[in-house]
Amino acid sequence: MLTINKIAELIDAEVIGDGDVQVKRIAHPRCLEKGDMTFAFDEETARLIEETDAVCLLTTIDVGKYKKPVLKVKDMKAAATMIYNLLLKIVEPKKGNIHPTAAIEEDVILGKNVGVGANAFIGKGTEVGDNTNIEAGCVLKYKVKIGKGCYINANVTLYEYTEIHDNVIIHSGTSIGADGFGYITKDGEIYKVPQMGRVVIKNNVEIGANTCIDRGTFDTTVIGKNTKIDNFVQIAHNVNIGENVFIAAQTGIAGSASVGNNVMMGGQSGISNHISVAANKKLAAKTGVIRNIKESDPETFFGYPSRDAREAMKQLGFLSWLNKHSKKIMKMVKNLPE
Amino acid sequence: MLTINKIAELIDAEVIGDGDVQVKRIAHPRCLEKGDMTFAFDEETARLIEETDAVCLLTTIDVGKYKKPVLKVKDMKAAATMIYNLLLKIVEPKKGNIHPTAAIEEDVILGKNVGVGANAFIGKGTEVGDNTNIEAGCVLKYKVKIGKGCYINANVTLYEYTEIHDNVIIHSGTSIGADGFGYITKDGEIYKVPQMGRVVIKNNVEIGANTCIDRGTFDTTVIGKNTKIDNFVQIAHNVNIGENVFIAAQTGIAGSASVGNNVMMGGQSGISNHISVAANKKLAAKTGVIRNIKESDPETFFGYPSRDAREAMKQLGFLSWLNKHSKKIMKMVKNLPE
Amino acid sequence: MLTINKIAELIDAEVIGDGDVQVKRIAHPRCLEKGDMTFAFDEETARLIEETDAVCLLTTIDVGKYKKPVLKVKDMKAAATMIYNLLLKIVEPKKGNIHPTAAIEEDVILGKNVGVGANAFIGKGTEVGDNTNIEAGCVLKYKVKIGKGCYINANVTLYEYTEIHDNVIIHSGTSIGADGFGYITKDGEIYKVPQMGRVVIKNNVEIGANTCIDRGTFDTTVIGKNTKIDNFVQIAHNVNIGENVFIAAQTGIAGSASVGNNVMMGGQSGISNHISVAANKKLAAKTGVIRNIKESDPETFFGYPSRDAREAMKQLGFLSWLNKHSKKIMKMVKNLPE
Repeated sequence: MLTINKIAELIDAEVIGDGDVQVKRIAHPRCLEKGDMTFAFDEETARLIEETDAVCLLTTIDVGKYKKPVLKVKDMKAAATMIYNLLLKIVEPKKGNIHPTAAIEEDVILGKNVGVGANAFIGKGTEVGDNTNIEAGCVLKYKVKIGKGCYINANVTLYEYTEIHDNVIIHSGTSIGADGFGYITKDGEIYKVPQMGRVVIKNNVEIGANTCIDRGTFDTTVIGKNTKIDNFVQIAHNVNIGENVFIAAQTGIAGSASVGNNVMMGGQSGISNHISVAANKKLAAKTGVIRNIKESDPETFFGYPSRDAREAMKQLGFLSWLNKHSKKIMKMVKNLPE
Repeated sequence: MLTINKIAELIDAEVIGDGDVQVKRIAHPRCLEKGDMTFAFDEETARLIEETDAVCLLTTIDVGKYKKPVLKVKDMKAAATMIYNLLLKIVEPKKGNIHPTAAIEEDVILGKNVGVGANAFIGKGTEVGDNTNIEAGCVLKYKVKIGKGCYINANVTLYEYTEIHDNVIIHSGTSIGADGFGYITKDGEIYKVPQMGRVVIKNNVEIGANTCIDRGTFDTTVIGKNTKIDNFVQIAHNVNIGENVFIAAQTGIAGSASVGNNVMMGGQSGISNHISVAANKKLAAKTGVIRNIKESDPETFFGYPSRDAREAMKQLGFLSWLNKHSKKIMKMVKNLPE
Repeated sequence: MLTINKIAELIDAEVIGDGDVQVKRIAHPRCLEKGDMTFAFDEETARLIEETDAVCLLTTIDVGKYKKPVLKVKDMKAAATMIYNLLLKIVEPKKGNIHPTAAIEEDVILGKNVGVGANAFIGKGTEVGDNTNIEAGCVLKYKVKIGKGCYINANVTLYEYTEIHDNVIIHSGTSIGADGFGYITKDGEIYKVPQMGRVVIKNNVEIGANTCIDRGTFDTTVIGKNTKIDNFVQIAHNVNIGENVFIAAQTGIAGSASVGNNVMMGGQSGISNHISVAANKKLAAKTGVIRNIKESDPETFFGYPSRDAREAMKQLGFLSWLNKHSKKIMKMVKNLPE
């Protein structure tokens, strides 16, 4: 546990009251457990919190005389984030339970303190590391490997041979390792390309709800460490995503594409198959990339087909300007010689 | 139950035959139960229905001599809709069952006539109102609150503290309450912003299949009453959706955006984070809104970045016209002085 | 089983070593079972495979002296695909098991050799054909019909009356048969249109992960034979998809639209409601179709609203050219008479 004084020192905040109180977690006033710090943006909520079991109030306002210790900060989001991450490193994880309705097959190796939820299924030859939680309704087909400290939310499906490293969070309804979309048409017949590879997800990745990552065809679909993926993201077979990449919701990355480190993809954007996007680039929302983006290209791309965002904006602006003068222009053009 | 005469009175239809027959439900000829009315668009189907257990035929055609009472209407969709909604108010809900394989934890309060499907999980401290049905494979994490007369289809995940009011329908595979997509990058490190709020869904909302609504960061993501949400809709953290809003499939609403009452969003449209759209506006399919839309703005927006739909169409039309005369224009421009 | 010689004959490959060895399956070196052929793109992997139980190596390189029979081919993807499909026809399916935690209701008819996974639910009156596999966590509501040789991956939901023909593959998290998005607004009230139809999926269809196909309103949503559908595809109520259609990820087809045979739809494309697209057309990624595409129209469409892809590209190119000369053009336009 961490004292309020220690937190104040680490995040630059003002302590009012007893700074030796220890904090276990930061939580909404609605769902307090013993040892929780909670937060208020306004006087009224702060007053209500005085009567709860919270050990400390985090706030941006001046609450005057207060029954509990107060940690006053300027930026609530930044403060709550730093406190949350500090406590993650220090507070012991909750003890995991294996729900009696979970179906766990033979040759499964569960680490210490693993939680398995109701009606989850863990297939043959699967390995799960210490302090990992697998919630209700999850299906791990077989020979899945999950590292330490992961949290797999409800109703997630992990296909066989999926490999997930440490401290990975996956939200509900996500499918990892399904067959990619590959067919060969020959003489009018359609043949399914066998999808024999797998998916590897590196440390500290977070994956949103109802997202899909398909297995590789011959090799591996890879998500690099620290990469964050939102809801409804489509990552096709053989894709290679670098480290520290942010992919907003409803984005699609087609087969065998690659995305460099630190790339940021806006919502509903897309990358065509076999295309590579160099490190540190930004794609605006709804952008569609159909040509490689190299290191020497501009930083931000926009539109479909994607182009330098500034150039794209100028083009759209100029079209709007031309249209404002359309009558004059049409009259003039009609009089031009062929 | 409702008699055919009563229905005819309420929806303006013609009764042929015994109008005192009582109707319990409207259903496809393929799946008739006792007391069902069914429908036919053509003579052949009407003849086949004569031999079924249907109590009455709803039709738009003249079927001549008929073994059963007939309710003749002009607009089948409108008629079936009004009948369906009339019967919903009058017919007693089916008695709910708790499937023996459902895992229900302690401190769960189930109302009268609640159904819980096979292998569903209902976590600690959850409350479910009368006549609500929770289908097979659903996961309600803990302290979820669901009102009366709701229907939660199979394999839905509701995160902790999700609050659902009365007469809400949620289709299969939907995830409600997952963490929003929030990170702070500082000195090259990525920190997860804790998502401590929840989701509140008001009365009479319908939510499609495989949709996602994320919990608020500090506060609440709200879906206003009577709002209808299609499949694959992404509603990010802290979003506020008004009443009577229609959101078509694959639309995305980014974090902290707000949508006024009666707004209609076409398929694959999007709203950027922190953007507000005033009441009664319409967004065409694939539109992307990146600036606030105020009450004084035009009614319909189109394109990305979104603009007045009429203006956008004129611009596209003018570009097409210019391109038709591109040779002449290029020659002329080349001769212009710098 | 098939000998290597026989395979070589059928796919035009070179056999090195004993061609009478029999092959049962093609698989990644990581997951070999008895009788498997495996593959290598490089010398190092080929050497490692010498020490495995693989019965044969499929490769594109020259491996020199080799402990096992080698099948040398020019195009690995094509070869693996043909071998995979040949073996599918010949090798006996694995024997199915009914997991003891599966909940199977009364009046369910399971064919020979049907597999039902852990915590799956199969509702009343459902029929499942021979050699079909239904994985863990699937929910088949009631009166579902599934043909022979189908593979329904984990956590799929099939609503009542869904009909699936033979050799259909459905990936995890997909919802089939949910209510379409239909409402009638009258005098300020919103009424749900009852969705009483169903979904029919013909032979040899493959459907990706987390996809949705909604039931018809009065009639049937149909997916024609051999059609292939990727992840996150939205197929709304009453849609009719032809044969041999390819639909890439995150595409949406709105209510009552129809798509002809052999159409190819790129990722994130869309078709508006009640629109028809003629056979053999191609839609580029992100294209949005809002007018019927007829047989006499060009082959490939692009953009939103969609237009002939060549014309669309020319328009975009011309806008870019005009913008390059914007200064000159603006000066000239300003001097034009009104």
